[in-house]
Amino acid sequence: MALIDELVKAFQVLPGVGQKTSQRMVLHLLQRNRNGGANLGDLLVRTMSNVRKCSKCQNFTEDPICRICSDANRDGALLCIVESAADVLAFEQAGGYNGFYFVLHGRLSPLDGIGPDELGLDELVRRIEELRPNELVLATNPTVEGEATAHYITQIIDDSIEKVSRIAHGVPLGSEIEYADGGTLTHALQGRRTIS
Amino acid sequence: MALIDELVKAFQVLPGVGQKTSQRMVLHLLQRNRNGGANLGDLLVRTMSNVRKCSKCQNFTEDPICRICSDANRDGALLCIVESAADVLAFEQAGGYNGFYFVLHGRLSPLDGIGPDELGLDELVRRIEELRPNELVLATNPTVEGEATAHYITQIIDDSIEKVSRIAHGVPLGSEIEYADGGTLTHALQGRRTIS
Repeated sequence: MALIDELVKAFQVLPGVGQKTSQRMVLHLLQRNRNGGANLGDLLVRTMSNVRKCSKCQNFTEDPICRICSDANRDGALLCIVESAADVLAFEQAGGYNGFYFVLHGRLSPLDGIGPDELGLDELVRRIEELRPNELVLATNPTVEGEATAHYITQIIDDSIEKVSRIAHGVPLGSEIEYADGGTLTHALQGRRTIS
Repeated sequence: MALIDELVKAFQVLPGVGQKTSQRMVLHLLQRNRNGGANLGDLLVRTMSNVRKCSKCQNFTEDPICRICSDANRDGALLCIVESAADVLAFEQAGGYNGFYFVLHGRLSPLDGIGPDELGLDELVRRIEELRPNELVLATNPTVEGEATAHYITQIIDDSIEKVSRIAHGVPLGSEIEYADGGTLTHALQGRRTIS
């Protein structure tokens, strides 16, 4: 198979990219931006092989400990639990939160066979014991599975944590955190309420 | 800058990809398809550095002469002139044409400063002298610039060519060949008419 045909096929691993879009991308790069295309290729190879999970928060990083977890200016009294790396990016871009994160990389979903073991909640318990935060902010998505995950986490943590909070329902129910605008996310954090 | 942030920025060289789409692509690959992502990166690097223009038809290829131009089963009596590499792909996917191509990589557009010299029409004249086709099929887009380009080409070629044809206006006027369906393109080729 010719190199261009292989590349057109390879681009279709991206979400939302089919045959026509892929062709358009390949020809656009060949015609107008070969340096940009080569740079993208180089970064893709390096990122796919070098990026692992942070040993503290499980977020994606090329370092053993990610930039957020190794930032001495962060508030160790706060630990925010999110479902995905995209949620961390959304909160960081919104601003207004200065604590640490823990990324679950999923949610409890018995129908899909994802229980507490598959989600690796023992890693979360270990991180809580290490950090000893005053407050745990449960920022799972406001969906059925996200709410169930938040509820389950309140039951497995010990009494050493003073406060467990849930982000406010400023985030529209049934939507995804990743797509909320910065203002909504900031209000959702400010309006968080104690649940146990 | 962290590797992931660099990659999110690098993805935005692609047409139609902004910050959010780029983030989604990067996290999708990291979470679900690292091999696919690494393969895409490797192919991108190789394609950007190895793909050049075919010495006969100017289409993109990693070989000195592309697969179509080096195919002995092609009909040397037909030469089809198109504006872009995407148009060759569209005709090949539609099927029904078995001659050779010549890719202009543009169209005459005086307002954008693209005249006969910028378009490299002397390359086309050289190719015609080499191939000596019986028929020249002008398949530039049915737009003002495409029509002007087709008209200009009829004036610079010599009398050795028996027939010069223009694809039929089965292709909707003002649209782009790249997006026409296979049936429309096949009819457009079959209904071509002699113009000089």
